[in-house]
Amino acid sequence: MTLNKDTEILIIGLGVIGGGYAKALTNAGYKVNCITKNQEDIDYALKNKFIFFGTTKLDAELIAKCKLIIFAIYPKTFVEWIEKNQSLFSAGTLITDVTGVKAGVVDKIQPILREDVEYVSAHPMAGREASGVRYSDANVFKGANFIVINTPKNTKEGIETCKKLGEILGFSRISELSIEEHDKMIAFLSQLTHCIAVSLMTCNQEPNLEKYTGDSFRDLTRIAKINDRMWSELFSLNKDCLLEQMDLFIDEFNKLRAMIDKGDEKSMREMMRKATERRMLFDKPTKK
Amino acid sequence: MTLNKDTEILIIGLGVIGGGYAKALTNAGYKVNCITKNQEDIDYALKNKFIFFGTTKLDAELIAKCKLIIFAIYPKTFVEWIEKNQSLFSAGTLITDVTGVKAGVVDKIQPILREDVEYVSAHPMAGREASGVRYSDANVFKGANFIVINTPKNTKEGIETCKKLGEILGFSRISELSIEEHDKMIAFLSQLTHCIAVSLMTCNQEPNLEKYTGDSFRDLTRIAKINDRMWSELFSLNKDCLLEQMDLFIDEFNKLRAMIDKGDEKSMREMMRKATERRMLFDKPTKK
Repeated sequence: MTLNKDTEILIIGLGVIGGGYAKALTNAGYKVNCITKNQEDIDYALKNKFIFFGTTKLDAELIAKCKLIIFAIYPKTFVEWIEKNQSLFSAGTLITDVTGVKAGVVDKIQPILREDVEYVSAHPMAGREASGVRYSDANVFKGANFIVINTPKNTKEGIETCKKLGEILGFSRISELSIEEHDKMIAFLSQLTHCIAVSLMTCNQEPNLEKYTGDSFRDLTRIAKINDRMWSELFSLNKDCLLEQMDLFIDEFNKLRAMIDKGDEKSMREMMRKATERRMLFDKPTKK
Repeated sequence: MTLNKDTEILIIGLGVIGGGYAKALTNAGYKVNCITKNQEDIDYALKNKFIFFGTTKLDAELIAKCKLIIFAIYPKTFVEWIEKNQSLFSAGTLITDVTGVKAGVVDKIQPILREDVEYVSAHPMAGREASGVRYSDANVFKGANFIVINTPKNTKEGIETCKKLGEILGFSRISELSIEEHDKMIAFLSQLTHCIAVSLMTCNQEPNLEKYTGDSFRDLTRIAKINDRMWSELFSLNKDCLLEQMDLFIDEFNKLRAMIDKGDEKSMREMMRKATERRMLFDKPTKK
């Protein structure tokens, strides 16, 4: 399927990410429909003019007419949805998603999916530490990274369409990864960071610390405001990769602990200079 | 000493924090002088009109006439400076600082300091991940916390003057702590966070990760761009407190690791909800 302004787009799940997609696509001149749980989210989106049509029902006619369907729901719910409802797709539909882990999702859905429907999975590397459509913001995609999962089941055309979707949404850097590459990378860059933030937030219950804090603690714990249902699902789905990255981090942290314990400032400074140099690579590209 | 617009102020060390102080005080209508290492930093400050006078020399006349002297230099250098040069202060001078650790500094200087000079130590909880006067910015103090160290050596008047300095600089919340309270707090809120950021930045050397990263990794490693000389000094000076906080964090992180390993989503979600709730406290007060 090729994506153009006549393509009817359906977003399933109008939360913080689904809402952001709806806003970005509507701004770009596309016609966006949605199916989501709560009528009030639909009312909000209609009032703010970033969807064309929305329903809380499993609307067969709507699903059949939309050739690009974006799933922005919890991983387990997504797999169940496909198992139950894939007969409603029309032939030639492209489905995609925003799921944070790919093993247990892509490799579960692709083998059971109808042969006349293609699923190209993607991961928008942008989010907010709050849930719900009211917090959605199309601007978070600008300057951000977009990852498309390329599997042996995918066609060149499907991959290109999904990349085009990333461009339309406003992402700066669009890459392709395999399921395994994605999950290893995401365990380090995203899941480990959330584990650290949560642990840092809960490890010390002293009162009044907020009176003394600076921005470094605030920055390291911003993502400790976390959607517990989603992240516990993601951690479980990617358990092996995540444990590996957690151990890598603990080892390095313990090395630094030993340097401090020994008063070995020379090694501390070497490690800090290495960190400073490597961090330069990760500065955000200037927003378009 | 009481602080008013006629007070001659001297900043020793015109770096990112000393420069920020100079800008904020000049903006507030105070006359700011400085002694610093590099003539080019003085030229920059004069050109940008945020100091009145600057010199790279140990100018006895200048030191004698300034009744408020702010040290914004490395901790060890600060202690050495006082040991060598305190005869240059005139009677009734108030000295203060911006040092990140108080044991090894305040309890070293106060006992050797002349009886006719008062040292009230302070810690501005605001900084930038870059060094040098060119990165200084008076705006970082707005909405930030300012901590004044109250010791048995201090007078009520000295403490009040130092708090007034914090107000003039633009800080939102000004608190008093003892040396021990400060160092315990700072080990957790600031030093531990820097240890985490550095370890996270150096524990994984995979290439190309910057192409896939989202903002969570960027936020957790912002402070991994670190002044290695300053931070290795601070870590060493506060070793015992820091090791204690590092262990607190490792224990909590290992608890989460065990939950993930067992697939115990219930406990994960409980910990995440606790983190989310506690993080609310740390949102920055609205800027004045």
